[in-house]
Amino acid sequence: MTDSGCSVGIVAAEDAVFDVPLPLASGAVLPSYQLRFETYGRLNADKSNAILICHALSGHHHVAGRYQPDDKAAGWWDNMVGPGKPIDTRRFFVVGVNNLGGCHGSTGPSSLNPATGQPWGSAFPVVTVQDWVTSQARLADRLGITRWAAVIGGSLGGMQALQWSIAYPERVAHALVIASAPKLSAQNIAFNDVARQAILSDPDFCGGDFYQQGTVPRRGLRLARMLGHITYLSDDGMGEKFGRMLRSGEYQFSYDVEFEIESYLRYQGDKFSDYFDGNTYLLMTKALDYFDPAKEHDGDLAAALKPAQAQFLLASFTSDWRFSPERSRETVQALIAAGKRVSYAEIESAHGHDAFLMLDQPYVDLMRAYLQRVAQEVNA
Amino acid sequence: MTDSGCSVGIVAAEDAVFDVPLPLASGAVLPSYQLRFETYGRLNADKSNAILICHALSGHHHVAGRYQPDDKAAGWWDNMVGPGKPIDTRRFFVVGVNNLGGCHGSTGPSSLNPATGQPWGSAFPVVTVQDWVTSQARLADRLGITRWAAVIGGSLGGMQALQWSIAYPERVAHALVIASAPKLSAQNIAFNDVARQAILSDPDFCGGDFYQQGTVPRRGLRLARMLGHITYLSDDGMGEKFGRMLRSGEYQFSYDVEFEIESYLRYQGDKFSDYFDGNTYLLMTKALDYFDPAKEHDGDLAAALKPAQAQFLLASFTSDWRFSPERSRETVQALIAAGKRVSYAEIESAHGHDAFLMLDQPYVDLMRAYLQRVAQEVNA
Repeated sequence: MTDSGCSVGIVAAEDAVFDVPLPLASGAVLPSYQLRFETYGRLNADKSNAILICHALSGHHHVAGRYQPDDKAAGWWDNMVGPGKPIDTRRFFVVGVNNLGGCHGSTGPSSLNPATGQPWGSAFPVVTVQDWVTSQARLADRLGITRWAAVIGGSLGGMQALQWSIAYPERVAHALVIASAPKLSAQNIAFNDVARQAILSDPDFCGGDFYQQGTVPRRGLRLARMLGHITYLSDDGMGEKFGRMLRSGEYQFSYDVEFEIESYLRYQGDKFSDYFDGNTYLLMTKALDYFDPAKEHDGDLAAALKPAQAQFLLASFTSDWRFSPERSRETVQALIAAGKRVSYAEIESAHGHDAFLMLDQPYVDLMRAYLQRVAQEVNA
Repeated sequence: MTDSGCSVGIVAAEDAVFDVPLPLASGAVLPSYQLRFETYGRLNADKSNAILICHALSGHHHVAGRYQPDDKAAGWWDNMVGPGKPIDTRRFFVVGVNNLGGCHGSTGPSSLNPATGQPWGSAFPVVTVQDWVTSQARLADRLGITRWAAVIGGSLGGMQALQWSIAYPERVAHALVIASAPKLSAQNIAFNDVARQAILSDPDFCGGDFYQQGTVPRRGLRLARMLGHITYLSDDGMGEKFGRMLRSGEYQFSYDVEFEIESYLRYQGDKFSDYFDGNTYLLMTKALDYFDPAKEHDGDLAAALKPAQAQFLLASFTSDWRFSPERSRETVQALIAAGKRVSYAEIESAHGHDAFLMLDQPYVDLMRAYLQRVAQEVNA
């Protein structure tokens, strides 16, 4: 085994069906739902070594490993989760779950609405980070996990980790909130709204009920993803990787791919539009927009965090301009003001927001060291 | 008259028709063309007091004044151009021109192609900053202006001012290059490409030949403009102006306007899509992408600027992240390396890229002082 650890190997997803209505923050009630999840490693006897991985906008339950030996890609955080990796599956029982409203197996807009027998489509209720955490808590109950050794997430996943610590204080020992923010800024919301409008205004979106029409809002999804990618990378990182490199050496004076950066973005957009669900994209961005735990406390984030019992690790990346270090510092300061135990690392990286998915050495070292401490606490 | 000066009053546009073919950087040739322009103030006897204002992406020739007394809006730089204003029309003869490929009266994609009698549409050739400057030089000839007291532009307009100084060294006394860059970064190009893809993939774009179809690519233009506006404002400025303010005080859990920033962007997008031409938007962003005077000098900007005889004023704004101060400093350093006379001001402003259109006092003072010096030189 190398320093970077090895793979969890072949994995399989499971489904948990909940036939109990789920009241949502919006006031709507989801009559029943299914969560698709995966687990890696082994739950110890006192069920104290479980870690929940919360995913970001386009993520899912398939965190690590492969379904088939010849799968091209492994789970989305395979570089961080596995035997000998920072989130070490020899010590921890790791759970990945696809969020409600998702398009990877959990109940979402493309699922059948039991009331109509048709896909939910536009009738699927808007879900929030709070709703996700509530639904994840039921999954924890089902798995017999009363307290997570850690809840971990980057970006939107970090918001879930934070929300877990507030909503279920006694159920979270450690919350790892990476490249995240306590609420979106106007600029963050603005980018989300452009992405949403791209999907909503795609004629193939059909008001959200495209499943029955046999269409897919590919144009909108493609644009949303292209735009998203710009905000995931840093200006400098993009400059280093692509600069003004031309596909064919000279200007073509046409609207075909000319610069390499165009090729990259269009490729990412095309790929994404082939598999992601338009309604899910809308829902996920709305969950981001709505997250604001301080809102019910007149903007006082420290007051919102008061109930938390977890220990916190926050990490941010210097070149991340989507959720800049400043945004993590807001949370850190509120945690300190609320008298919580918090560690904070601002990590030098050129990878922008995407850095939370990459292996910058200081980040790997940080995660490894922190989680070794967590493991010792639970005798994992 | 107040310190901020008064209006140039009622103005009228003029057309200059050029029946001489214009060879373009792409290799294509425009058989003939028309430029729409406006002038304010009076050309002095030795024709030495003329200032050319170059417009940015969505600008045009209507720089100052009103066509009718009850026009809601004045020209786009009315706050800077007029009697007693920094670009003082009591002293200068100011020329505004709509660029080739535009949609405000100059020959562009919606004009009739003389070869077919149909709108040019997709057949209109790609134009560059160099082409614009060449066409503007012909307009200068027509007006009897052999040397501009100053060529002034912000953003894409600044690129034209820079190009003027390179292409016609003896015809530019001063080049004022504001909130601009010597070339786009990968991130700049990326944003442009998302905007272009929004227009190109709008079914109503019809491959650029929508005029005959009676359609307008409104969806694409709207998205392009929404996205553009995000990059024109600073994160902080947007936060101060809109923050997380809600339209109706509480979350609505719908995709209608919820946050004020959404309302602002959608309004701007809708308004823009009502009057701007989709093909023009594509052309203007390509002109931005292509501009790179150092390209023919192996990336050596100082070498590219060597022929210039103008004196330069460069200005940038601290919160501008589209063309950050760093980008202006690149040009300043190259000008210094090339032995040119250059003044540079980095202006504290929360207005982002849009600051070049606003009246931050240090900016107004700078422009006023600089142009008073220019006026003295030409006895204006």
